[in-house]
Amino acid sequence: MDPAQAKIRFRDPQIEMAHGAGGKASRRLIEGLIAPILFGSCPQYLGDSALVEIDGAPVAITTDSFVVKPLRFPGGCIGELAVNGTVNDLAVGGARAQALVVTYVLEAGLPTATLEAETRAMAAAAARAGVSIVGGDTKVVEHGKADQMYVTTCGIGRPLPGINLAPGSVRAGDKIILSGPIGDHGITILLARGELDLEADLCSDTRPVLPMVEALASAAASGVRWMRDPTRGGVATSLNELARDCRLGIHLVEESIPVRDIVRGACELLGLDPLHIANEGQFLAVIDSACADTALEALRRAPGGAEARVIGEVQEQPAGVVLANTRYGGSRVVDMLVGDPLPRIC
Amino acid sequence: MDPAQAKIRFRDPQIEMAHGAGGKASRRLIEGLIAPILFGSCPQYLGDSALVEIDGAPVAITTDSFVVKPLRFPGGCIGELAVNGTVNDLAVGGARAQALVVTYVLEAGLPTATLEAETRAMAAAAARAGVSIVGGDTKVVEHGKADQMYVTTCGIGRPLPGINLAPGSVRAGDKIILSGPIGDHGITILLARGELDLEADLCSDTRPVLPMVEALASAAASGVRWMRDPTRGGVATSLNELARDCRLGIHLVEESIPVRDIVRGACELLGLDPLHIANEGQFLAVIDSACADTALEALRRAPGGAEARVIGEVQEQPAGVVLANTRYGGSRVVDMLVGDPLPRIC
Repeated sequence: MDPAQAKIRFRDPQIEMAHGAGGKASRRLIEGLIAPILFGSCPQYLGDSALVEIDGAPVAITTDSFVVKPLRFPGGCIGELAVNGTVNDLAVGGARAQALVVTYVLEAGLPTATLEAETRAMAAAAARAGVSIVGGDTKVVEHGKADQMYVTTCGIGRPLPGINLAPGSVRAGDKIILSGPIGDHGITILLARGELDLEADLCSDTRPVLPMVEALASAAASGVRWMRDPTRGGVATSLNELARDCRLGIHLVEESIPVRDIVRGACELLGLDPLHIANEGQFLAVIDSACADTALEALRRAPGGAEARVIGEVQEQPAGVVLANTRYGGSRVVDMLVGDPLPRIC
Repeated sequence: MDPAQAKIRFRDPQIEMAHGAGGKASRRLIEGLIAPILFGSCPQYLGDSALVEIDGAPVAITTDSFVVKPLRFPGGCIGELAVNGTVNDLAVGGARAQALVVTYVLEAGLPTATLEAETRAMAAAAARAGVSIVGGDTKVVEHGKADQMYVTTCGIGRPLPGINLAPGSVRAGDKIILSGPIGDHGITILLARGELDLEADLCSDTRPVLPMVEALASAAASGVRWMRDPTRGGVATSLNELARDCRLGIHLVEESIPVRDIVRGACELLGLDPLHIANEGQFLAVIDSACADTALEALRRAPGGAEARVIGEVQEQPAGVVLANTRYGGSRVVDMLVGDPLPRIC
């Protein structure tokens, strides 16, 4: 498939911040320009991770670059994020990370202490996630040509037994499960930059979601239809992608979605929707309703899963749309993220 | 192994361009700081690629970031380099690349046409090398916070049958084979920047070395002891690493090393040694002398291998040292690259 034949055409003359924000503009860039050239007729490579066969063994692979600013923030840092992000992309693709490789692009003048701290954070995060770092590369660019450091990780792993994810397997009646409170990461970064005059006891949620995913997989196996970690673009963007891909309607019960007061408050001040704010330690799953209760119980017993809950369900209509329903019977359409209100959060 | 116990200690207070040049400073940074933290007691992960086992299948993996400036130069561009570089790191590790993933860090304001051109170059290079691109990620940073674009590729593949590389298997008497003329890439980049007032008909040598490596592997199998693609730091740095790792002496016959006149001329003007200049489409191999002739013949018949030749041999002494011998019986010690005379060549 050539970009000329793509359903979405990317016509913007130059790249802007919004193209990296994970929302609508990112989707146009990827689906209208990059994917048709690189992946041709294999759109499955648009997912969080891809499955390839090496000598008969299925190998899951994924990669992400990290440009978060500032490098350190309450609850985490770029090194930790870079490990957890890749471990999580594999996890929600139904795979257990086994090996990571990492590259640094460093700005000349970077204090060695900063590099050492981030490298130690990566090693600690890898140990916590049970994955080995097996190689890497380091490049240095002139002072002023990068800001401090960019980190890229690539991870490979093996598929979890029994899991068979596909948006096409999602059915009306399936339940949507969320692993915990949303928006902590995005708002933590915003506050760490001092862009809002708020003192708050809030931390990034960066963590590996694998233990929770494994608990869900053991409890529900093929009843797990779809998973996603709602990072850039938040829960709203992930669920819009799902609605579009499965051509079904997503009905959220707004009150059931856990949002901390400080996150809600910051969003109100800024005119943002918590559903658009990035998370780095939560995941969404669509589960066959027949095993949703069992799955939720297992998830809640897993380390870090105590706050998991069902936040909505899949229905036939309105196809391709995400609706948030209030307790008073009203509802609103929840769109993908537009623009880039919080740049460089991962 | 903690940096405190590492044989090399990295004491520089901040990161400088030379730490990314692939020579002595890079080695101190990697071996004295990063590797002890990330790889602990597994120094084998310092090689061009690593081998991990996924469900019983051996999988080779490697990654590199690319920050070459300018993005386009005679004979190639950053997108092509990013594919070939990773395919080649796998090849000289004795593996055939099967799947790549790619990430972009883009500077806001980058013309879309530039991004499209580089993406097309990646797709073309991947097709040429027989490898699929199966995923990726795109981040955007503010104008001025990166220059144009940085590209990272990660590749996985399967080991070539019969190959068993290890510096420890290198023996005195083994022959050193080089695939073709050296220094083309580094000097092309230098000229493309206009840093030298020279008009020259010179192109980067960027290309996949896999067809040549496969020819060598079929002809010599376990007679192939060691391979390396002499990129940053050049042939001198790669062979110094070999000499150190196998604790033997490397004797080069200086006249047998192919260097184009324009490369030699530019090096003379700048006081550089062609042995320190980067290559992006050549490789070095150490071959058991018993099969060196057969191997060289096979390599010369392979596409792109016509200019391959034996450039020296391994001897017991002087252990850990690379010597270049002239036809008049003199010799000089060839050291690793020191400093960064040609920054950002890949």
